[in-house]
Amino acid sequence: MHEFEMIRDYFRPLTMDRAEAGGLLDDAAVLEIPRDFDLVMSSDTLNSGVHFMDNESPANIAHKCLRVNLSDMAAMGAKPYCYQLNIAFANMPKEDWVKEFTDALMADQKEFGIFCSGGDTTVTEGGLLVSMTITGLVPRGKAVKRYGAKQGDFIVLTGDIGDAGIGVNVMLGVLKLDDPAHFLNACHRPVARTAISDIVQKYAHAAIDISDGLISDLSHICSVSEVGAKVEAEKVPLSYAARNLLDKGLVTFEDLFTGGDDYELALAVPPEKFETFKVEASKRGVDVSAVGVFEAGEGVSVINASGEALEFDQQGWTHF
Amino acid sequence: MHEFEMIRDYFRPLTMDRAEAGGLLDDAAVLEIPRDFDLVMSSDTLNSGVHFMDNESPANIAHKCLRVNLSDMAAMGAKPYCYQLNIAFANMPKEDWVKEFTDALMADQKEFGIFCSGGDTTVTEGGLLVSMTITGLVPRGKAVKRYGAKQGDFIVLTGDIGDAGIGVNVMLGVLKLDDPAHFLNACHRPVARTAISDIVQKYAHAAIDISDGLISDLSHICSVSEVGAKVEAEKVPLSYAARNLLDKGLVTFEDLFTGGDDYELALAVPPEKFETFKVEASKRGVDVSAVGVFEAGEGVSVINASGEALEFDQQGWTHF
Repeated sequence: MHEFEMIRDYFRPLTMDRAEAGGLLDDAAVLEIPRDFDLVMSSDTLNSGVHFMDNESPANIAHKCLRVNLSDMAAMGAKPYCYQLNIAFANMPKEDWVKEFTDALMADQKEFGIFCSGGDTTVTEGGLLVSMTITGLVPRGKAVKRYGAKQGDFIVLTGDIGDAGIGVNVMLGVLKLDDPAHFLNACHRPVARTAISDIVQKYAHAAIDISDGLISDLSHICSVSEVGAKVEAEKVPLSYAARNLLDKGLVTFEDLFTGGDDYELALAVPPEKFETFKVEASKRGVDVSAVGVFEAGEGVSVINASGEALEFDQQGWTHF
Repeated sequence: MHEFEMIRDYFRPLTMDRAEAGGLLDDAAVLEIPRDFDLVMSSDTLNSGVHFMDNESPANIAHKCLRVNLSDMAAMGAKPYCYQLNIAFANMPKEDWVKEFTDALMADQKEFGIFCSGGDTTVTEGGLLVSMTITGLVPRGKAVKRYGAKQGDFIVLTGDIGDAGIGVNVMLGVLKLDDPAHFLNACHRPVARTAISDIVQKYAHAAIDISDGLISDLSHICSVSEVGAKVEAEKVPLSYAARNLLDKGLVTFEDLFTGGDDYELALAVPPEKFETFKVEASKRGVDVSAVGVFEAGEGVSVINASGEALEFDQQGWTHF
């Protein structure tokens, strides 16, 4: 398979849903931005051996890369619009690999209502590298930032926390489980909460997606918002499977709150708006939980059911 | 130097020119798109060992990556606006390296009137990889495509052709020259003709930037415009240095027209508008030349001063 055939048969169809992208036939896509909307733009790169295993399935790589990018749009309260796909292959890939990779992207394009606006394919000396730049739309001036949290706002989380981090530890061989499928799936196919972008934009004072771990990402909101955050550990939503491991002592709150890769949202929602937000989120198929309060001070503290502070050795995951 | 320090001290300042990018403090940049403009978006990735030598200077890598992306905006007739910078390091880079790299980007930001809207830094198993996604603005519906060339349009080129390809051959050791500086510079710092984006948009029926070689890229215009192109070899603008090598028999027309990496523009301009286009381009500091005509038929033919067809073995450069 020659590069031109690969692009023509597999990558170009990703752009054909929408005329704007020009079917990758030109130097660039031309995108018509609706009036009175801001453009929101973000990039995330996943590398073989760092963000996924060398032998990871192409579908998992595709889903993960697209969804970690989509997650940033959700955190801004933006409706995702399109993405640029920049892929560096270690070698000319087999056709089967490319088919599975692009099929997975196409499935997610339909699920999330987006299209590929272009990109680049190259070869690299190293392992596979997939870099995406995603763009989204938000009504002018309404993008949700990290810095808007106010004292008294509830700390609100979507979904369950910690499953993906457990999945990572399973993959790394740090944790051995009889049935790790739930955790591996959480790690491979993050949820990307764009289904609630509209109400994040409407009700949240601040938001972030949890990529490096709950504590680490909450601390980003705290530092730029100049507030502290007190999290009640027992209120943090866990899956049945994670709760089971916690009860057995196989994982700790620290594992769950600092593992990262959740791609759930952490939000600052004013108390008087929380019930409405919760109802609206539920209508969109997303469970949300209030797990604590932003307050005067700085940094993130975690307390147990007795009100005692839990001390963690680490905050989260860094790349270097 | 820790990742956070590197971003704070070197990469974040690239975004500080403009409030829109948010100083990389958020999940995404929020960009206000002016009314009645389309957004033009494109990506290009450069890999160590493929697009630049493993020991290439950080300034050269920065200039080249930004300018090959800017060149796509020029080809669309778009004014460049901002770029996402996605960089994968083989190892944690030395501070000197990062300083030189980001200084070069900042210099080009000022020269081209753009800013960095965000990005991502990661580590990879392989060599350095720099991927950029650039966005530009063009009045609604006015983006210049590859497919608009009409029979009778002049084939118009900016600048000189072939210098960068000679530079590549010098770097590869294929060609030995006493004083290769002019050619190496053409290769390392493409010109990116965004200075004439406004008149490309106003006067050109079609345009492409020459990345894979004059013949190869002209053939892209031909195939999607359903025309042929007849190039008069002697009219193709060459630098004094390249003309000298041609006269000495050290390089051939084939080398010059298929070497690639020119990042000049090839345009289809209607004959009645060519003189005005040339005058306006000159006012913007860019020389343009008419080197032939788009005509009925298909593909690109090259004729010498006697009107005889020149046959080339290859068309241009491919990645695989």
